[in-house]
Amino acid sequence: MNILQLIEKKKLGGAFSQEEIGQIVSSYSGGSLPDYQMAALLMAIYFKGMTEKETLDLTQAMVQSGDSLDLSDIKGVRVDKHSTGGVGDTTSLILGPILAACGLVVAKMSGRGLGHTGGTLDKLDAIPGFSSDLSEEAFMDQANAIGLVIGGQSASLTPADKKMYALRDATGTVNSMPLIASSIMSKKIAIKNDILVLDVKAGEGAFMENKEAAEELAQLLVKIGQGAGRKVAALVTSMDQPLGQAIGNSLEVIEAIECLKGRGPKDLYDLVLALAQKALVLAGEEDPDQAKKRVEEALEKGLALDKFRDMVIYQGGDPACIGDYALLPSCAYSLEVKAPRSAFIKRLPALEIGEIARDLGAGRLSLEDELDLGAGLVLEKKQGDFVEKGQGLCRLYANDEDKLQLAQARFLEVLEFSDEAPKNQDLILSIVE
Amino acid sequence: MNILQLIEKKKLGGAFSQEEIGQIVSSYSGGSLPDYQMAALLMAIYFKGMTEKETLDLTQAMVQSGDSLDLSDIKGVRVDKHSTGGVGDTTSLILGPILAACGLVVAKMSGRGLGHTGGTLDKLDAIPGFSSDLSEEAFMDQANAIGLVIGGQSASLTPADKKMYALRDATGTVNSMPLIASSIMSKKIAIKNDILVLDVKAGEGAFMENKEAAEELAQLLVKIGQGAGRKVAALVTSMDQPLGQAIGNSLEVIEAIECLKGRGPKDLYDLVLALAQKALVLAGEEDPDQAKKRVEEALEKGLALDKFRDMVIYQGGDPACIGDYALLPSCAYSLEVKAPRSAFIKRLPALEIGEIARDLGAGRLSLEDELDLGAGLVLEKKQGDFVEKGQGLCRLYANDEDKLQLAQARFLEVLEFSDEAPKNQDLILSIVE
Repeated sequence: MNILQLIEKKKLGGAFSQEEIGQIVSSYSGGSLPDYQMAALLMAIYFKGMTEKETLDLTQAMVQSGDSLDLSDIKGVRVDKHSTGGVGDTTSLILGPILAACGLVVAKMSGRGLGHTGGTLDKLDAIPGFSSDLSEEAFMDQANAIGLVIGGQSASLTPADKKMYALRDATGTVNSMPLIASSIMSKKIAIKNDILVLDVKAGEGAFMENKEAAEELAQLLVKIGQGAGRKVAALVTSMDQPLGQAIGNSLEVIEAIECLKGRGPKDLYDLVLALAQKALVLAGEEDPDQAKKRVEEALEKGLALDKFRDMVIYQGGDPACIGDYALLPSCAYSLEVKAPRSAFIKRLPALEIGEIARDLGAGRLSLEDELDLGAGLVLEKKQGDFVEKGQGLCRLYANDEDKLQLAQARFLEVLEFSDEAPKNQDLILSIVE
Repeated sequence: MNILQLIEKKKLGGAFSQEEIGQIVSSYSGGSLPDYQMAALLMAIYFKGMTEKETLDLTQAMVQSGDSLDLSDIKGVRVDKHSTGGVGDTTSLILGPILAACGLVVAKMSGRGLGHTGGTLDKLDAIPGFSSDLSEEAFMDQANAIGLVIGGQSASLTPADKKMYALRDATGTVNSMPLIASSIMSKKIAIKNDILVLDVKAGEGAFMENKEAAEELAQLLVKIGQGAGRKVAALVTSMDQPLGQAIGNSLEVIEAIECLKGRGPKDLYDLVLALAQKALVLAGEEDPDQAKKRVEEALEKGLALDKFRDMVIYQGGDPACIGDYALLPSCAYSLEVKAPRSAFIKRLPALEIGEIARDLGAGRLSLEDELDLGAGLVLEKKQGDFVEKGQGLCRLYANDEDKLQLAQARFLEVLEFSDEAPKNQDLILSIVE
């Protein structure tokens, strides 16, 4: 391989062959291709893009850089879900139990989070005793026994993606559509599920800032997944305001349990329902209305909550917290932010609200930061709601009173009011499959 | 400095401030900015370019990364010359003595070469005993005594350019106009001459493949030089076929001496004359015809050859070689390539002919390669000439008979004949000042 010729090829807008991509990935992963040459190549890819074929080949090369997790020992139809990341996104904790209650198998590997809140594993850490550090055997056994398991990402999967992502993060080459798509999908394809439902967020609080970019990414993700033999569909959903009401690890666990009890916020429930419905249809349910009914039944009959409880028990957590939220981590202080005037809420910007929650202790700035699992906020009003002067807008939770004061000031600063009712925005913008 | 923000700025086509460029160069030169981030930034610069102001600032920052050579102790008008590099370009060895004979001071630092032939220092190595490894004191003294000195580039000048050039070479970011221009000019500006004449080559055998690109580079070089307070002019000249007849270190020294004796090839003489004329006009000679006459006189009266002889003596070389070329390095074998048919020579491609000379031993592929100072070739016919079948086209010199056979085959392969007289091409395409 002559890396200078390959860099030149990409600079001129050329497309790499499968063999060339394989050589780039394996030599970078193996250490013979140095960071500075890879950085130059990644920047050339940022400017000149990659064809769909190249993106597929790149994804497969990253999958082949490490182990794959063969789930064929798990009986049943195996489904995975991925969200491109938003603020207050608690869907996995609700969707998993629902799909398991509907007879599918959810054997999911999740990560920890950088940003507004922790990742799914951080949220589960809020459950006393819960462990996501499972052996492959325990992971498989639990999936077979109850159809639901959420473990930590194995370090041996897609090492090339890990190394490339770290370099992209340090060289300003993160926001490239083919690089984003191949990074996401390599991690998903390395785990051999049958079905994949994707939630691609669009908006200020998301990676893709508008619907068009999110749809483009969704189409690419779906094509890569299908190219790898998966049944896959993507929902493009709005992330202009936070999803649901809770942002914070413990607070989102409570919200998820409430949702499983049939008392969750409408937008969160609607999104979970749409994702679950899509997964069931991909699994063979021909009638979407029937799929919807199955989801509703799983919730109404408490079957989904039972699955959640089973998972908590299997993974060493204390199931009593499901009935008594006081057993979950909480904060010493809280503060309700009140409306300064009577008006409609015009804008509740996801990114800024997420940053407020992070600064209260719910999220990390760097991977070494420790989370305050009880910290965060719960929105009492959302975009489009009318609020009377003095009424509660949001409740903030922290272990530091100064942080509450700062968060309150910032919250009132980023919020926008309007005397007229703002137009309602759709949550689900489009479906790609 | 936040390098990620700076990379992002350039990705979006923004322009850096003088301060930002200073920080980038000093932190890269100092080692706190790692190669992989610099590589990404260089690739973003390749795609988005730099303004003239940024290019000036980059040049100055690279000058400031090291020492400058203050020539103010040298009396007289100090002139420097730079060529962007071509095949068979022996002008420096002729122009320097001419300008010194005309009363200017030529205190030049040159480099060694990578490619078709060696650099000016390599060519001078062909003179027995000649040394270009001079102390600063010896360099200054010789310039004051005879008005002509050619020494090696000091390692303490523009270290940032050296480090950046090595990285560009390894990351496919060489061919960027602002990066080329600032690299060339930083080395020139670090030496405080009064006048700078530039020879920007255009054509297949040059860095800039066409006239337009060469003119753009010439304009940028002139503006940077003027911005740094130099009197500067650039000739844009054709490099479609080799300049002069000789390609090879010893062979080019002979050609230069022949030229100083008034017997050089016409194209080489014309170019030297034009450069010398331009330098004299920049030095205050108001009448270009008078400038031309001064150059002609310096040659006719043997004053330029005397200066060359003085330089050889001062720098430890054997001046007897000027009268007896047998004292210069030569090769054991030579071979004359004969015309396979009677025709006009339509194409004598500079790059390929240069590569043939390199493979005979005249040039290097890597900096460790040793040159065969006697090796190379002498063209007996040039583009546009008519040749009879069996007449000599070119004489090849090597110390290995197999190399001669290979070179002959390659020479006949790259040469193009025509039954009609091809259109004459101008040597000097334009003048930028």
